[in-house]
Amino acid sequence: MAKKLWGGRFQQPTDELVDQYGASIPFDYLMAEEDIQGSLAHVKMLSKTGILTEKDVAAITAGLKQILADLKQGKIEFSVENEDIHMNIESILTERIGPVAGKLHTARSRNDQVATDFHLYLKKRIPQVITEINNLQTELVKMAEKNIDVIMPGYTHLQHAQPIAYSHYLLAYFEMLQRDKERFEFNQKHTDISPLGAAALAGTTFPIDREFTAQELGFQDVYNNSLDAVSDRDFALEFLSNSSILMMHLSRFCEEISMWVSYEFNYLELSDAYTTGSSIMPQKKNPDMVELIRGKSGRIYGDLLGLLTTMKGLPLAYNKDLQEDKEGTFDAVKTIIPALKIFTGMLSTLKVNQEKMKHSTENDFSNATELADYLATKGMPFRQAHAVVGELVLKGIQTGKNLQDFSLAELQKSSELITDDVYHDLKSEVAVDRRNSYGGTGFKQVKQQIENAKQKIK
Amino acid sequence: MAKKLWGGRFQQPTDELVDQYGASIPFDYLMAEEDIQGSLAHVKMLSKTGILTEKDVAAITAGLKQILADLKQGKIEFSVENEDIHMNIESILTERIGPVAGKLHTARSRNDQVATDFHLYLKKRIPQVITEINNLQTELVKMAEKNIDVIMPGYTHLQHAQPIAYSHYLLAYFEMLQRDKERFEFNQKHTDISPLGAAALAGTTFPIDREFTAQELGFQDVYNNSLDAVSDRDFALEFLSNSSILMMHLSRFCEEISMWVSYEFNYLELSDAYTTGSSIMPQKKNPDMVELIRGKSGRIYGDLLGLLTTMKGLPLAYNKDLQEDKEGTFDAVKTIIPALKIFTGMLSTLKVNQEKMKHSTENDFSNATELADYLATKGMPFRQAHAVVGELVLKGIQTGKNLQDFSLAELQKSSELITDDVYHDLKSEVAVDRRNSYGGTGFKQVKQQIENAKQKIK
Amino acid sequence: MAKKLWGGRFQQPTDELVDQYGASIPFDYLMAEEDIQGSLAHVKMLSKTGILTEKDVAAITAGLKQILADLKQGKIEFSVENEDIHMNIESILTERIGPVAGKLHTARSRNDQVATDFHLYLKKRIPQVITEINNLQTELVKMAEKNIDVIMPGYTHLQHAQPIAYSHYLLAYFEMLQRDKERFEFNQKHTDISPLGAAALAGTTFPIDREFTAQELGFQDVYNNSLDAVSDRDFALEFLSNSSILMMHLSRFCEEISMWVSYEFNYLELSDAYTTGSSIMPQKKNPDMVELIRGKSGRIYGDLLGLLTTMKGLPLAYNKDLQEDKEGTFDAVKTIIPALKIFTGMLSTLKVNQEKMKHSTENDFSNATELADYLATKGMPFRQAHAVVGELVLKGIQTGKNLQDFSLAELQKSSELITDDVYHDLKSEVAVDRRNSYGGTGFKQVKQQIENAKQKIK
Amino acid sequence: MAKKLWGGRFQQPTDELVDQYGASIPFDYLMAEEDIQGSLAHVKMLSKTGILTEKDVAAITAGLKQILADLKQGKIEFSVENEDIHMNIESILTERIGPVAGKLHTARSRNDQVATDFHLYLKKRIPQVITEINNLQTELVKMAEKNIDVIMPGYTHLQHAQPIAYSHYLLAYFEMLQRDKERFEFNQKHTDISPLGAAALAGTTFPIDREFTAQELGFQDVYNNSLDAVSDRDFALEFLSNSSILMMHLSRFCEEISMWVSYEFNYLELSDAYTTGSSIMPQKKNPDMVELIRGKSGRIYGDLLGLLTTMKGLPLAYNKDLQEDKEGTFDAVKTIIPALKIFTGMLSTLKVNQEKMKHSTENDFSNATELADYLATKGMPFRQAHAVVGELVLKGIQTGKNLQDFSLAELQKSSELITDDVYHDLKSEVAVDRRNSYGGTGFKQVKQQIENAKQKIK
Repeated sequence: MAKKLWGGRFQQPTDELVDQYGASIPFDYLMAEEDIQGSLAHVKMLSKTGILTEKDVAAITAGLKQILADLKQGKIEFSVENEDIHMNIESILTERIGPVAGKLHTARSRNDQVATDFHLYLKKRIPQVITEINNLQTELVKMAEKNIDVIMPGYTHLQHAQPIAYSHYLLAYFEMLQRDKERFEFNQKHTDISPLGAAALAGTTFPIDREFTAQELGFQDVYNNSLDAVSDRDFALEFLSNSSILMMHLSRFCEEISMWVSYEFNYLELSDAYTTGSSIMPQKKNPDMVELIRGKSGRIYGDLLGLLTTMKGLPLAYNKDLQEDKEGTFDAVKTIIPALKIFTGMLSTLKVNQEKMKHSTENDFSNATELADYLATKGMPFRQAHAVVGELVLKGIQTGKNLQDFSLAELQKSSELITDDVYHDLKSEVAVDRRNSYGGTGFKQVKQQIENAKQKIK
Repeated sequence: MAKKLWGGRFQQPTDELVDQYGASIPFDYLMAEEDIQGSLAHVKMLSKTGILTEKDVAAITAGLKQILADLKQGKIEFSVENEDIHMNIESILTERIGPVAGKLHTARSRNDQVATDFHLYLKKRIPQVITEINNLQTELVKMAEKNIDVIMPGYTHLQHAQPIAYSHYLLAYFEMLQRDKERFEFNQKHTDISPLGAAALAGTTFPIDREFTAQELGFQDVYNNSLDAVSDRDFALEFLSNSSILMMHLSRFCEEISMWVSYEFNYLELSDAYTTGSSIMPQKKNPDMVELIRGKSGRIYGDLLGLLTTMKGLPLAYNKDLQEDKEGTFDAVKTIIPALKIFTGMLSTLKVNQEKMKHSTENDFSNATELADYLATKGMPFRQAHAVVGELVLKGIQTGKNLQDFSLAELQKSSELITDDVYHDLKSEVAVDRRNSYGGTGFKQVKQQIENAKQKIK
Repeated sequence: MAKKLWGGRFQQPTDELVDQYGASIPFDYLMAEEDIQGSLAHVKMLSKTGILTEKDVAAITAGLKQILADLKQGKIEFSVENEDIHMNIESILTERIGPVAGKLHTARSRNDQVATDFHLYLKKRIPQVITEINNLQTELVKMAEKNIDVIMPGYTHLQHAQPIAYSHYLLAYFEMLQRDKERFEFNQKHTDISPLGAAALAGTTFPIDREFTAQELGFQDVYNNSLDAVSDRDFALEFLSNSSILMMHLSRFCEEISMWVSYEFNYLELSDAYTTGSSIMPQKKNPDMVELIRGKSGRIYGDLLGLLTTMKGLPLAYNKDLQEDKEGTFDAVKTIIPALKIFTGMLSTLKVNQEKMKHSTENDFSNATELADYLATKGMPFRQAHAVVGELVLKGIQTGKNLQDFSLAELQKSSELITDDVYHDLKSEVAVDRRNSYGGTGFKQVKQQIENAKQKIK
Repeated sequence: MAKKLWGGRFQQPTDELVDQYGASIPFDYLMAEEDIQGSLAHVKMLSKTGILTEKDVAAITAGLKQILADLKQGKIEFSVENEDIHMNIESILTERIGPVAGKLHTARSRNDQVATDFHLYLKKRIPQVITEINNLQTELVKMAEKNIDVIMPGYTHLQHAQPIAYSHYLLAYFEMLQRDKERFEFNQKHTDISPLGAAALAGTTFPIDREFTAQELGFQDVYNNSLDAVSDRDFALEFLSNSSILMMHLSRFCEEISMWVSYEFNYLELSDAYTTGSSIMPQKKNPDMVELIRGKSGRIYGDLLGLLTTMKGLPLAYNKDLQEDKEGTFDAVKTIIPALKIFTGMLSTLKVNQEKMKHSTENDFSNATELADYLATKGMPFRQAHAVVGELVLKGIQTGKNLQDFSLAELQKSSELITDDVYHDLKSEVAVDRRNSYGGTGFKQVKQQIENAKQKIK
């Protein structure tokens, strides 16, 4: 068995299952590029500060660049014996350039190295997430404009509540995504910080220049405390928490699409491109993607809880438990980015059954508030108006009439305040149009909000 | 049975167990003040906009103010029949001022009302949390200054790694808390927004002025979309996520204190005021608080996951599921604020066994890196230096010697690069002092970081 | 300040906030009865084994019984200074009978005492949960019998899949609840074990009789290892896990009821007794209970994860973290028992719109599998039959026809295997009736399953 | 683009990203063997019942067996276009034997097929988990026997509480694992049930024989309700819950090993084979495995919560969300089995520093309870004895004496009940030996429990 790079004081080889179980290379190979970039910056700094000679640094740099090039061409193979991406790269480097490769690890530890890789990794992905959120917001605004005056029942408790504009509904998701975007932007502040140079936990006696490596790697800031630098995973927790909230939002949207494409609602139709069939039932057109994205909220919540649990009660500084930080985070990245892309594509090909939506608002009691407000405006205390209309609704249910179906004489039995103008107020388009309070569903409001939204996505 | 305020269309009374199970008054009474403040602002706006007459508004305002005064004196009793804080207050108001009380609910729904109460509630607590974090940070800086040159073993994998300054260790927690503070500050941006006027879900036909009520209530902003305003609980999720990360940090600190006050470590001694005894073992002095706070991380994670789960897949806008948002959030508030206070008090009365800490660094191999760096500085590739020192350590373990116990001749058998100056480097205070890279444990660095920290807490 | 019962070696009083934060009496008072029962059994054993004199034991027993009687009459007040239910009871006992009360705690610790209380508490509640599950199952069987031949669309992906019997659907929930019942029964095995006599962690030097106290308290078994006895909370975790799965089942049922009482589905109507109205919208009849129970799944998941997290990485034996075990468990008990009761009541008053259900299966393509099976039976490979029917469905969508609306000539264009008997097969009642494979929706199967179900609930 | 097997009614191809995101083949290929076994049983039944001809069945069977053989030799390649393991196998079969392959899917759906595969998969793994738990228990009993009379401090609150036998401590973990084993055994009852024949959701019109396929596949039972059969994932949730509790137990053990191999405790020494070094610090011997296993508790909790969340609120029967059931379960299998193996290996090579353990019990106050019990036995109420000893401890701390260091005269100042025999009681081996209550740490008890334990593992 090959002696480990750290094996000086060890007399027995590592148990084979231990090697396998402890190895991170099966997943941290995803940070191979970041690892080499970090090493290149580190070694450049070692030269600049005179810690290593220019000659040594040139050899190491050339070797690393060659490995990076080979990596991009899929020519590099990693091995579990070398545990992690760091040891793998160093081992390949040693094969290629000999013992001078051993100088690369001067004034550095795997503890700050892995933290650097992880920061670099996430720092690149966060802007991708933000871009995809922005794309989905753009699609929502487009849809809202196209459907500006489509009327549908607004729901509370999944019961018809009041008629609203479908465009208004779409903008509600715009707002959620806007907060998501702000959260990821904030997240970047705690991600875009360089831990490189924290060494094992305490900094180093070598005259390193942490600002220099940070700049080389494009970091905005440098960790102030070396113990914190190697122990901190807040940036990953924020990412997972933000991803969880994002997925929660998408799960709500999915839930509604799932219902709205059902036989019973029939408000929407998904493109064939975003649905699948059944192996046994020839008629099926299943909204697989909305279900899958909804279901994946569980996965992301699990990733978040997993890391929170792992970090609970860990003493400073690095502990092997922290190796569990990456898979959940990688999983979240590869889950949410395509989810956002698919959502954008799915919405852009969605058919809206405008007539079905509108029709629903004309054969229900969702205009009951109009009548109560009508009475309140005429001076009846709102509570009393509510009771009067409630009894009318009951009568309507019993006799198969909606409110607008009652004659004026019938209505006046409930209250003499009612006059002929009431029928105007009971129309769903009027009900929508008149909800013109700030942020309300009134068409003027929605148009204004569409304009505001455009400012936020450009 | 008294008819419900919303009971117009109902023919049968609510099942008694349903009343109990569905009632939120057992916990939302905590927002009684916020509820009345919200109503006062709302009714003032109704007068200003002419929706209600000045006379009606005067009656309602006087009634509400009287209830608020009585509430503060503990004179108000709530009932489960009235379901929630909103219906309870309105019902009391009706008893006191008669049917005009019914006008208070004009142009408002319980959906925007509860959202307003909840925003107001949290908007007040977030600054309290921030203050308590700041107090704990202040204590940490004080301790760091007082213990500036105390040396202890730095740990990785709970094994002695390299000697560090205890003050440096304390500042690591300062950094974590700083990020916590920033997270809560960010959280406030999504909390300090008024949903009032969103009504049930769609806005209202009354000519309300949402800016006015927002200003009355001290909100910085107003929700742009009425559906979003009544459905959004992101601000609570952010609070629970931030609280989870905060508790994770404290759990790490607790874990270390728990170990460090043990018989075996004996680095710290807690004040009697922050410990308890045993009912059976007379010698016990248990660090109850550090264990309890550590344990309460689970509770807060549960609160977070609870709300995330509840919100998964909920269609817009309000659903009764959302009533589950409050208890977890209230629980987090009442858990983290005292936890922070207790931590501050506990640290301020903590005794540090400086000799024991120092002694640990002089009877171990935590200076092994010094020797490797020593060799690397003299030109040996770091990997080789590592191996050389690893073998010396093994020899030391077998012969009962630490590195500084070897004679120069013995050391030179391992490498001829070693000369007499090595013994200087092997001293723990030198090891600490020389780790002078930015953010490292070197005393100069720590002093600088203390100054920087002071800027962040004033 | 009163000296603590354990205060011998302490020189300073406990900080007041520490007293409050650490006190468990605000919630463990719920185990007051169990605590006294445990003490009564303990002291009886102390007499039997001669550890205490009969006279002392008589005094203590009389005192405890009096406290128990007063407790049941609501005459006992607890105080935070006395921390927990154990110290509170002992303190009251001391007030009443003097220093002899101090002998009660001989050969016992609060560690085994609290474990005993908690086991007793849960051991009583698990059978209550099982009874409530059984009641709900009984209601389901009743409904199934009453609606034996009601036909509805069966759903996959919330799309019409194949027609099924509504009774068959109801029995699916019967099966889930049966597993829930079995899980709680298994749970009882790990709950019904006595930790009393484990003392602080190591057993005791007194010649106690653990079998005797176990029998007195009705326990089936005794813990074999004293460290395990005071550290084990598996029984609570099992309870929370079982409660989580139960709530997951209910959440699925709730989700469906929520949709099925909507305007769009209109399959079910809830009784007024299990719904509520809106403060603003007079027409609303909201299925609050199904939403609330669905939402409370989050709370229970949080309780489970909270305790799992708290227990992660705890060294043996008792740590104060374990005090966090109770609130979540109590919360689960008080959440799931009424949820089950409300469900039973809600179902027993539910109106089923049989026509609407049936009608849905006659105007859709849920009989497409019938046609594919028809062709497969006549020898066409199933995959080909699937494709043939798929194309017919597409044609039907484009021309506004369901499968049974096509003329025989039209059908035969798709396959010559089709003859006139196909129309029989396409009827939804035939489709249901013929699905007579074991466990299928065929009426004969459902009747058999109803009989089997009755065996499981008697 | 190749038309999907279910593509009859679709006019547009699936979006490529949708294909990738929705495909389960990247993970469900792990059930390839189970999938083929299920198909073999299914087709055998189709022949037996005359649904397919013997000739067709012979062709399909031969084809499937060939694929199974090729699979075991690593010769089968799967493709994302074919979505899942079921479609992949069917597609390969079609390539090999032509259109007759299409008959395999007669009277079956992917819904019951995937459920069958998943049940088969887990039904095989649960016994492996039980075996590994049993192996670890066996190792614990061996260690307990070997270290039967080793004395160490028992801890509560991580403070020395009372001396205990190390063997007693080891048996506490035996007990936890015994409950784990029982939980997995119970889990098997809900796993070892065949869903095959439930078809899409409603059973089938074909005269299938579900008992037959169940027996072919070695299932103990058959699902009673077809809707339940395809929707139920309780068995996976139970597995994840059981795995979570198991990992919680291991995390506690890990936590203790982590502390006990520290410089400060120095109770244990891990073999080189189960530790790793540092890339920078030559002296390090890190207990990586105990940290990693402890950390992986988070991952498993996450898997549990993930699936619980995914299943919350899902309507019956199959929804695509359910595809999220497998990865977490597979992850748990591949996490806990090696964790148990590594633990067994780690313990079998562990060195116990018996002197260091014993020494700790002789230089502390862990015999304080002995003195209190001594006084209580002589008639002093326990509470008073507790106070007396508490004050002695305080005096001891102030004067640097342990209890046994006080002269008899000094002790008698505290209580005249004390005579010379007290010194015997204060010895740690006496303290252990005398804790002879059932399940206590007394050596006789431990020996008895070792015998009992052996019965449970054979």
